[in-house]
Parts: sequence; C-alpha cells; structure tokens
Amino acid sequence: VQRYFSNIKEKNSFILNDDDWYHIRKVMRMTDDTLIEVVYKNNLYICKVKDKFAVIDKMVENENIKKVKYVLVVPLLPEQKMSFVLQKATELGVDEIIPIFTERSKVKIDEKEDKKLLRWNRICKEAAEQAKRLDIPKISRISNIKDINTNGLKIVCSTKEKSNSLKKVLKNNLNCDRIIMGVGPEGGLTDKEEQVFIEQGFIPVSLGSNIMRVETVPVYLLSVLNYELME
Amino acid sequence: VQRYFSNIKEKNSFILNDDDWYHIRKVMRMTDDTLIEVVYKNNLYICKVKDKFAVIDKMVENENIKKVKYVLVVPLLPEQKMSFVLQKATELGVDEIIPIFTERSKVKIDEKEDKKLLRWNRICKEAAEQAKRLDIPKISRISNIKDINTNGLKIVCSTKEKSNSLKKVLKNNLNCDRIIMGVGPEGGLTDKEEQVFIEQGFIPVSLGSNIMRVETVPVYLLSVLNYELME
Repeated sequence: VQRYFSNIKEKNSFILNDDDWYHIRKVMRMTDDTLIEVVYKNNLYICKVKDKFAVIDKMVENENIKKVKYVLVVPLLPEQKMSFVLQKATELGVDEIIPIFTERSKVKIDEKEDKKLLRWNRICKEAAEQAKRLDIPKISRISNIKDINTNGLKIVCSTKEKSNSLKKVLKNNLNCDRIIMGVGPEGGLTDKEEQVFIEQGFIPVSLGSNIMRVETVPVYLLSVLNYELME
Repeated sequence: VQRYFSNIKEKNSFILNDDDWYHIRKVMRMTDDTLIEVVYKNNLYICKVKDKFAVIDKMVENENIKKVKYVLVVPLLPEQKMSFVLQKATELGVDEIIPIFTERSKVKIDEKEDKKLLRWNRICKEAAEQAKRLDIPKISRISNIKDINTNGLKIVCSTKEKSNSLKKVLKNNLNCDRIIMGVGPEGGLTDKEEQVFIEQGFIPVSLGSNIMRVETVPVYLLSVLNYELME
C-alpha cells in the first residue's frame, strides 16, 4: 500500500499535494476507492482515494516510536551526493539534517538556498513515504556550527583521531535522547573547523581503517546507531 | 597519491592496463617521475611513472590486514543498484561477492554473463583503488545458493524473522574467520528460497524496524560488521 504525507485535514478527509495526485493517478493509475496510507501529524490513517480527496477509512494505532533522535550535520555536497545522503539517511531514520558550509566543500552556491531546501525536502518526503515513516526529517537552513542546538551526545568524524573509536564512544554514551553526528567534506574538515566542533562539545571519533567516500559516512553512522539501539 | 592495481611485474617495474594509463596521463595529467602507488600481489609499492611503466621506488610494509572475511550473497539487481552495491561494499571491505538468481529479481539477462562480470570487476577495482585497499574483491559467477562455499558464520536477512535480531546473532558468533551475508531482492526472498538458505546453515535475522531499499541493506550489514570488529 502506498504511503503519502498530508498537512491538511478537512472533515473526514485529507488534502494531498499535486505531486502526490500525479503519483496516485498517473504513475500508480489508482481508481476511486483504492486504499492508500496517509500520515497526518505523525499518525497513520488508511484512506480511500475519492475524487481529489483521501477519505479516512480508519486510524491505525501508533507503532512504538524510536526514542533517540538522530541529527546529522553535513557539509554542502555536490547535488548528487547530497540527494544520496538525504535519501539514505531518511531510510535509516534520521530526524534532523543540518547543512553547514565548510572550507573544503567544493560546492558553488549557484541557486537560492530556498530552492535547494525545497528540493531537499521533496527528496526526504519521498524517501520517508517509501520507508513507511510517520514523519519527515527536518532539514535546517544552512547553518554555522556555532549556532546549532547541541543538546545530546555529539560526535564528529575525525581523520586525525586514532584512540577514540566510534565504538568506544557509543558504548559509553548511548544513554541519551539525541545524538548529533558531524561529518566532513571530501578532504576532511580543516584543523580549525574540527577545533570549532570540539569547542561546541563534539567528541572526535575514528571510524576505523576503511577509507570511505564522503557520502558513505552518514550511511555508516546511521547503520551503526540503528544496530546499537536495536533490542 | 593515486593507487592502481597491477598483475604483471617486469624486472623493477609494473605493467598497468590501458584504462589506468588513460587515467594517469589524460585524467590526472601526470608527467614522468610523478609518484603513484601500485598494489601487486597484496603488497604496496611506491612507484614513479616512466613512459609506459610504473618503476618501483620502494615497497611499503604491509599494514595490519583484517582477519575476518566478508562474503556478500546478492540477488541480481538492476545495473544501477548493482553498481552501487559493488562500489559501497568494496569501500566497506567486502572480500567476496556472490550473485544469485532469485524468483523476484526483476532483472532481464540481456547480455552475456561474462560481459556483466567484466564490468562488475572494473567497478570493484576502481572502488578498491579509491579506498586504498590492497586487494580487489572477488566476484563469483552467478551461482546457486546450494553450490557456494558455506564455511563460517552464515546469516540471511529475513522479513519474517522477529526474535533473532542481527545484534543477538553477531554478539554470539563473531569468533569466526568468515561471515557470509545473504540478502533478498525487492519484495524479499520467497519462503522457499529462505528455506534453502536455512537448509544451507544460514541463520535468518531481523534488521530492526527500518524499511530499507534493497541496495541499502548490504551497506548497512557491512557497516555494522566493521563497527563490531573495530578495536
């Protein structure tokens, strides 16, 4: 059953956006009375397609929701890599993504930030639907590391750090309700940038001996977190 | 420093293939005497580019090599997803990849297997160079699950399994020298296929509550293994 997110409820039905209707009618070729899932305010409803509405059939009891929030701090990446990170991070349960400028990001700001954010949000929404999530990750505006909310366990991937492995740090600190993970661009964070992270309370960690591409690192981190927090 | 693999040594230099020379001369625009890394029989050499040869400057002492072998059993996937899996799995240290037919793989065999294998091998070679590995993962011919070497810990990702989590199984079985991981295609393995895996000694495991795309699963598994086997 296909899942869609809605922000607007009218009496006993939900309003979906044009992209969703295109998907429903043109891509999936659904006719009236086809069942779909609609998520509204983190609750799941089974609905019937009717004309231009998703009419509520029944509400579904909330499954248990993961307690620890995952926050990913990523440098601006070339668009293809950014899409990849947004999609995979959404699949792996990221709650918040904070893009930052870094010295070695080789990304030209060739368009308005608002346009970028719209596209990024669409990628996360679609990935959240496919992964059957009850929420869409929040993408912040492009930020400065000094200005972000640093509540929770904070780690930053470091190429210099040798003794503090990700494993050691996670084993000793998993009793928290928010984990913020900072990753660097291709070529890594500069020493100065890493220092700023450390001043903000981030613990530099080593990821082991594999040399990963930039876009693989968030997937690695979120996989490991899901695993560690598994029953 | 760029890394290349070579199979042929002649006196004090290595022969590289045409693709590598194209990369060296046209893409990287290296001139004679530029230093490159060449891996030959799992050993690393610093070499100088000279005409059509990589002339040995010095051999580098082997770094410590991971002991546990990672084997990935994957269904035939659409080419783009297969490339993704091969590239990421190589970055994350896979040693052997065994492609298998499954009922729900929606892949047409529209070309000779040999041609596929050539392309797949090229992807793994390039990823191994970029990840600075000392070996290239071995890709088997398309196999039947009944015919593979099943020495070691064997797990198969199951959508039905609820109680046996990946974590439980890994924690109790990591003392092995080879781990074989089976994953299903989109839509999952059929009951019958899962049964064949189980008859071969594979332990069905659950990966938790996230719904991942097919190509994300191998990345997740290898990330977790690297993490668990980290010092």
